[in-house]
Amino acid sequence: MSGNFKVAVLVGSLRKDSVNRKLALAMTEMAPPGLRFQLVDIGQLPFYNEDNDDPALSEWQDFRDTMKKVDAVLFVTPEYNRSVPAVLKNALDVGSRPMGESVWDGKPGAVVTASPGGIGGFGANHHLRQSLVFLNVPTLQQPEMYIGNAYSLFDEQGKLNNDGTRQYLKGFLAKFTDWIEANSQAA
Amino acid sequence: MSGNFKVAVLVGSLRKDSVNRKLALAMTEMAPPGLRFQLVDIGQLPFYNEDNDDPALSEWQDFRDTMKKVDAVLFVTPEYNRSVPAVLKNALDVGSRPMGESVWDGKPGAVVTASPGGIGGFGANHHLRQSLVFLNVPTLQQPEMYIGNAYSLFDEQGKLNNDGTRQYLKGFLAKFTDWIEANSQAA
Repeated sequence: MSGNFKVAVLVGSLRKDSVNRKLALAMTEMAPPGLRFQLVDIGQLPFYNEDNDDPALSEWQDFRDTMKKVDAVLFVTPEYNRSVPAVLKNALDVGSRPMGESVWDGKPGAVVTASPGGIGGFGANHHLRQSLVFLNVPTLQQPEMYIGNAYSLFDEQGKLNNDGTRQYLKGFLAKFTDWIEANSQAA
Repeated sequence: MSGNFKVAVLVGSLRKDSVNRKLALAMTEMAPPGLRFQLVDIGQLPFYNEDNDDPALSEWQDFRDTMKKVDAVLFVTPEYNRSVPAVLKNALDVGSRPMGESVWDGKPGAVVTASPGGIGGFGANHHLRQSLVFLNVPTLQQPEMYIGNAYSLFDEQGKLNNDGTRQYLKGFLAKFTDWIEANSQAA
């Protein structure tokens, strides 16, 4: 049954001390046997501009090459001004081009948003989901992951400080594994 | 009555031949007497990262200084993957920081989206509006501006090729002028 799926993890914050990066690392450390997580950097990608896409900028080409080799994608992002941070939106746009060669098409995905406040990045989560509809990324619906008060979940070493959150993330990752198995083009 | 308002025009595409840029220039050329339009470049702004904001990167500071001097803002943007292009979202994010010093707060705005297809950038238009709620930009509601089949409206010199569109944009700019007068902090 269980495949061995490569999963790109894209983090929507560039801050060194980002709570979303901590969350992404925590999930990476507790990856189920069937999933191999790979953090993919997106901060070095220039803004998408079709004028520079024939031939493609090398940063764009490298990113596309990396993404074409993975079986699924996990987005872990904060919310900026009730929407998706530009750095993550740019990765979506770069990966979607040139027309007909999108790296996203048909690749299973999941969205996790985390924020210091109570809303847990709901605005970013659903703006991202709207783009994922267009990009034809079959996206895990439940469990939804809006992680509020996120700073309180990590200790000073950046590790999860409680077992409840750990179990919650484990449950999510199990569902995500099932989702990838059901929807993967590589299965 | 009529004030003399400075209006920043932010274009969400970096392409030289962008139809949204043509549209922005067309509106600039037909600016009503009370408005002075100023195209503000946003393509040079690095992705927002709080780690680089104390002191601020010079590109961010220059942009903030420019935006603090204008009375209103006009967004003219394509849609990328059913949402706002990263370059424009980044400008919103950069201008919104540091906390408590947002350049957007209370500044009247309007949104125009244009696309080659029939939907006219509806997805980008309303994602942008969601951010503008949070940023407290009083945003012109009507007339909504979803400009579909936009390539067909310009000639080979990049000028509007028909009087109907010209009148339509003039009507929009008149309403926008009223909106700025009613909502401007500088009034």
